[in-house]
Amino acid sequence: MASILPASNRSMISDKNTYAGKRFVHVKNPYLDTMDEDILYHLDLGTKTHNLPAMFGDVKFVCVGGSPNRMKAFAVFMHKELGLKGGEEDIKDICAGTDRYCMFKTGPVLSISHGMGIPSISIMLHELIKLLHHARCCDVTIIRIGTSGGIGIAPGSVVITDTAVDSFFKPRFEQVILDNIVTRSTELDKELAEELFNCSKEIPNIPTLMGHTMCTYDFYEGQGRLDGALCSFSREKKLDYLKRAYKAGVRNIEMESTVFAAMCGLCGLKAAVVCVTLLDRLNCDQINLSHDILVEYQQRPQLLISNFIKKQLRLRDQML
Amino acid sequence: MASILPASNRSMISDKNTYAGKRFVHVKNPYLDTMDEDILYHLDLGTKTHNLPAMFGDVKFVCVGGSPNRMKAFAVFMHKELGLKGGEEDIKDICAGTDRYCMFKTGPVLSISHGMGIPSISIMLHELIKLLHHARCCDVTIIRIGTSGGIGIAPGSVVITDTAVDSFFKPRFEQVILDNIVTRSTELDKELAEELFNCSKEIPNIPTLMGHTMCTYDFYEGQGRLDGALCSFSREKKLDYLKRAYKAGVRNIEMESTVFAAMCGLCGLKAAVVCVTLLDRLNCDQINLSHDILVEYQQRPQLLISNFIKKQLRLRDQML
Repeated sequence: MASILPASNRSMISDKNTYAGKRFVHVKNPYLDTMDEDILYHLDLGTKTHNLPAMFGDVKFVCVGGSPNRMKAFAVFMHKELGLKGGEEDIKDICAGTDRYCMFKTGPVLSISHGMGIPSISIMLHELIKLLHHARCCDVTIIRIGTSGGIGIAPGSVVITDTAVDSFFKPRFEQVILDNIVTRSTELDKELAEELFNCSKEIPNIPTLMGHTMCTYDFYEGQGRLDGALCSFSREKKLDYLKRAYKAGVRNIEMESTVFAAMCGLCGLKAAVVCVTLLDRLNCDQINLSHDILVEYQQRPQLLISNFIKKQLRLRDQML
Repeated sequence: MASILPASNRSMISDKNTYAGKRFVHVKNPYLDTMDEDILYHLDLGTKTHNLPAMFGDVKFVCVGGSPNRMKAFAVFMHKELGLKGGEEDIKDICAGTDRYCMFKTGPVLSISHGMGIPSISIMLHELIKLLHHARCCDVTIIRIGTSGGIGIAPGSVVITDTAVDSFFKPRFEQVILDNIVTRSTELDKELAEELFNCSKEIPNIPTLMGHTMCTYDFYEGQGRLDGALCSFSREKKLDYLKRAYKAGVRNIEMESTVFAAMCGLCGLKAAVVCVTLLDRLNCDQINLSHDILVEYQQRPQLLISNFIKKQLRLRDQML
C-alpha cells in the first residue's frame, strides 16, 4: 500500500496495521514545528547542528534498553547479523557528547540506552520521538529489550509483554501534566507481539511466553523485595502480593514498560516489550547469577529481536 | 560528644544534631542482618566479595549527582582540593563492573552518579545506604549536587534546598509499597542547609540562595515544557503553573530531591540538595548554553561543596 498523503501531512496518519504503508511518527505538540531550532539536550543532537534526515531518515527499527553496554553489544551483534561492512570499531556512540544516553546505528537499526526507571526512559523517548519526527522516519517499529524479575517462571525465560500494567495490576500510566494527573492507555501492538511470539518458536532452547508485565517506580519496596535498605512488610505480605500479581496475569516486573507503551502508542510507533527474567521472585530477591549466565540470559531477547528484524527486512525486500 | 552506644547498637542512634557524635546509618529492614550475603547488584559490590568496612569505613561525605562524568570530575577536583597523593589516573571507578552507576573515592569523600529520575536514584540509595551500613560508617553527610531549571532567578544561580516538594508543591514523597501508597516526609537537615548557605557567602561571584526545590517525574510535560514530543497545554497554562510554583516558594525544578530527602531522612543521613540552575523557566524551555558556560555552571555546586567539606575536616582535626 503506497502512501496517500504528502510528507507535509506526516503527523496525520494513524495506519497502525501495516508494515508497507507509510506510517509517520506523530508528534503531538503544536509548538514544535514553530520552533526555529530544536536542541535534543540529553542526546546532544539538534536540528541546526545535525542533519537529522540524513543521519536517521532510513531508521526502521529502534531497540532500547537500560544498560549502555548492553545496547552497544546489541548494535555490534546486529551489525554482524545484517552482514554490514566494517568492524566493531566503526560502531560509534552517536551521543558521545553526553553521558546521559548512548546511541548506535547499524543499517536501519538504532540501538539506544535509556537508563533505569520511568523518568529516565521518558526523557529519552521525548527526544527520540522528536528525532524520528525531524528525520522524517516512517514505518518505525520500536522494541524495548530489557531485563526483569519473573513471577512463577524459570529464570532465563523471555516474556513478550501483551499488556503493561502498574503496581495495582491496571493497564494504565498516570502522567502528571503541570499539576493534573492524566491517565493514559498502556496498550501495545498486539500484532507485533504475536509476530514476535511466532518468531520465538523458531529459536530453540529459549523458553518464551506472552504475559502481562508489571512496571514499578522502585526496585526494592515497590517490587516487594526483602533486601532493601527499607522494608516494612513481612515475607508473607510479599508473597501474597506477588501471587496476586501472578493471578492477574503478571509474569514479570520491570521499571519502564507503562510509560514506554503510553508514549509510543500516542505517537504512532508500533511498540513491543521483550524482557528476559533474571530470577523467580517467588523464590528470591537477590540476583546472584554468575557473570556468564547473566550475559547469556541478556543475549536471549537480542537473539529473538535480531531474528525478527532480519525476517522483516527480507519481507520488505520481497515486496519491493 | 563521644558515642555512648557500642558499635553493635549502631542502628539505634538518631542524634541528628551534632557532627562529633557517632551517628550511624540506620537500615530499617529487619531481614537484612539475617542474610548470609548481600549482593549490591547495581553497584557490583557485595559483602562476601568485598571487604566493605576496609574499603569504605572512613567515608564521611557522600556526594551524588546524575551524570557519571560530572561525578568523576568532582572526585578529581576533591582529590586536588584535599591535597591527596597521586594523580587523576589513580581515581578509579569502584563500580567499573557495571554500567548502571559510577563511584569514586577520594579520602573520606565518596562521589557517585545516580542517573536521572526518582527510580534511578532510589535504587542507588538503597544500595548505598546498605553499603554504608555494612561498612559501619558513622557521621555521614550526603549532598546531592545537581543541575536544575530555575524559576524567576538568573541562570547559573545555585539553589540550596530548604524543602523538597512534589508537583503539587507539597513537602511529601509518595512511595508505593506493594500496592499501598505511603506518604513520607521530605524534610532535609536545616542546620546543614544553613551551614552551606553561610559557606556560600565566602565564595565570590556565585549567586546562591535558599528555596524550595520541586521534584517531578518527567522533564517535559511534568515541568510544563512546550518543547517535548507531547504537549497538551498552552503557554499561558505553563506560565500560570510556574508562577504558582514561585509563589509557593519554589526556586528550582529537578527530578530526584523528594525521594533523596525521604530516604536519607529515614536512614539517619544528614542530607542536603545543592543544584545550579541552567535556565530560567519563566523565559524558556530549551537548554542552549555554550559548552564552556555549561561546564562553569556545573562546577559551582562542586566549588561550594568542596569548600564546605574542607572546612568540616579542619573543624574535626581541631577537635581531635
